[in-house]
Amino acid sequence: MDQRTEIASIGEFGLIDHLTKNIEIKNASSLVGVGDDGAVIDHFGRQTVVSTDLLIEGIHFDLSYTPLKHLGYKAVVVNLSDIYAMNAIPTQILLSIGFSNRISVEALDEFYAGVYAACETYNVDLIGGDTSTSQKGFIISVTAIGEVAPDSYVKRSGAQVNDLICVSGELGSAFLGLTLLEREKRIFEETGAQPDLEGQAQIVGRLLKPEARKDIIEFFTEAEIIPTSMIDISDGLSSDILHICKQSNTGCVLYEDKFPFNEEAKEFAYKLQLDPTACALSGGEDYELLFTIPQSDFEKVKSNPLVSIIGYITAENEGSHLITRGGNKHPLVAQGWNHLKR
Amino acid sequence: MDQRTEIASIGEFGLIDHLTKNIEIKNASSLVGVGDDGAVIDHFGRQTVVSTDLLIEGIHFDLSYTPLKHLGYKAVVVNLSDIYAMNAIPTQILLSIGFSNRISVEALDEFYAGVYAACETYNVDLIGGDTSTSQKGFIISVTAIGEVAPDSYVKRSGAQVNDLICVSGELGSAFLGLTLLEREKRIFEETGAQPDLEGQAQIVGRLLKPEARKDIIEFFTEAEIIPTSMIDISDGLSSDILHICKQSNTGCVLYEDKFPFNEEAKEFAYKLQLDPTACALSGGEDYELLFTIPQSDFEKVKSNPLVSIIGYITAENEGSHLITRGGNKHPLVAQGWNHLKR
Repeated sequence: MDQRTEIASIGEFGLIDHLTKNIEIKNASSLVGVGDDGAVIDHFGRQTVVSTDLLIEGIHFDLSYTPLKHLGYKAVVVNLSDIYAMNAIPTQILLSIGFSNRISVEALDEFYAGVYAACETYNVDLIGGDTSTSQKGFIISVTAIGEVAPDSYVKRSGAQVNDLICVSGELGSAFLGLTLLEREKRIFEETGAQPDLEGQAQIVGRLLKPEARKDIIEFFTEAEIIPTSMIDISDGLSSDILHICKQSNTGCVLYEDKFPFNEEAKEFAYKLQLDPTACALSGGEDYELLFTIPQSDFEKVKSNPLVSIIGYITAENEGSHLITRGGNKHPLVAQGWNHLKR
Repeated sequence: MDQRTEIASIGEFGLIDHLTKNIEIKNASSLVGVGDDGAVIDHFGRQTVVSTDLLIEGIHFDLSYTPLKHLGYKAVVVNLSDIYAMNAIPTQILLSIGFSNRISVEALDEFYAGVYAACETYNVDLIGGDTSTSQKGFIISVTAIGEVAPDSYVKRSGAQVNDLICVSGELGSAFLGLTLLEREKRIFEETGAQPDLEGQAQIVGRLLKPEARKDIIEFFTEAEIIPTSMIDISDGLSSDILHICKQSNTGCVLYEDKFPFNEEAKEFAYKLQLDPTACALSGGEDYELLFTIPQSDFEKVKSNPLVSIIGYITAENEGSHLITRGGNKHPLVAQGWNHLKR
């Protein structure tokens, strides 16, 4: 970014035109997009799923090590992840941003390049939003909209006793990526040494450019699976399985030796003397799908390499526990992301 | 507010439970509300309208003279106004807030009391959102969702040459309210004198507790009127009629002597040596509906005291003008709200 164009020089309406001029609508359900008081959608007999997230600089992201393009991509993806977690297909987003005068038109172009890349990858339309100045920091609000066949949405509250607990992908990597970047930032601030991210592309990528599990929802359709409950892992496995148990009025048992890890991430955890299991349980931001299925669906999932069966649902009065590799039984505690961050 | 409960003492999930525990769903279209990854709605064959706004402390509101309850009410109403401006009926909202540790649970209770009061008045359901801490200031993001009979929505782009230009209610009051409150704040800061708002309830009310024109949309249905174009007045009459003209590829003529004013507001404007017409054109935040209708609908609107006919649509090459009381013709300029604020 060599050039710096002040936003004031093109004005609010000029900025909106500039940022949205290349939008091509991809979904037939997007009837009216950017540029009116509201957008109009028609899901033609399907039901509509909506979710929203607020992302604030200094709380949810650190611009000192987050490229704006990645931030735009991630801001969209984490919202789409919520739509998938309802067993729905995202179709539209609304995006509002607040920015201080530190931000140039070129910087917003970078951010929007990431936003549009995510829209392209996940086939969603940007149909509205708001732009504003802020007194301090960059503020992002995304509302994602999706569609689902009537009454095929999956809530957190449907888990049944003896259901299998499954998770997609690998756990704990995003937290390790954050730990690495925070460490390198500290070293840079103290010594001026450039970050050493050698060989850590996987964990850094998982933090800075996560993907939502569109493929898992497509697998459910092909395999004719409707999970009994589902949530995306944003706060950490521990916190999120407890959401399912609380809302389903059940307990659960998880097996540490079934947790899926990336080998590279595991090595890095040991190097930092961190327990990969703790990273999975309390790390958060993995954006994997955590879901329960009846035992009768076991055959359908067992050969899918993207899915790991990590435990089962129990009666509420049995509580929620982790069985360690050594065979010990520990109660699960919801610590969540913020706890570890501090 | 005598008591002060720190938000940290009840935690994020405790706070969400606390703020949402009394929600009663009012609309059949709200299938799944607060408490899952996403909310689910079904407009049962009607189309869905969505709109979103970001409100930032120090930019959009000043907590030194804005009661939190009023702020909650207004944050909802300004979004519903956008839904009405599409000729749709609002049904749901999503609400995200970011707050610093200056804010207590009791303060958020005040804010939510206003939010729920607006939901009650306009019959909409709060079905989701996000809560977060912020580094500085109070941040509000509202997404409003509404429904409309298939293809009955009204865009900004449908105005035709010779259409009548109509506006609901009265203009300029909100700007005068802001001027008064900013003046009293300055006096208080300089001299410690308590605000003198005597006799100014109308203009202060219009700024702090605006209402959205649900009644006008209901009138359209009863009178079987579908406007050719519509927008809500948030930036000022001048800026907003120019949006309609630009998107409809037309010009317009407005008559100063047809502008609707509140008598009390007009008196106050003269007292401050402000021109009420300038307040209407550039003041903004009136949240009245500005719309165009074919001349054949003249009989339907002429006896409605809530609607004023203030001009007509011309060909694009004739430009956009104001005819003053003295008979002079001035080109309309989009100055907008922010311009006047500074």
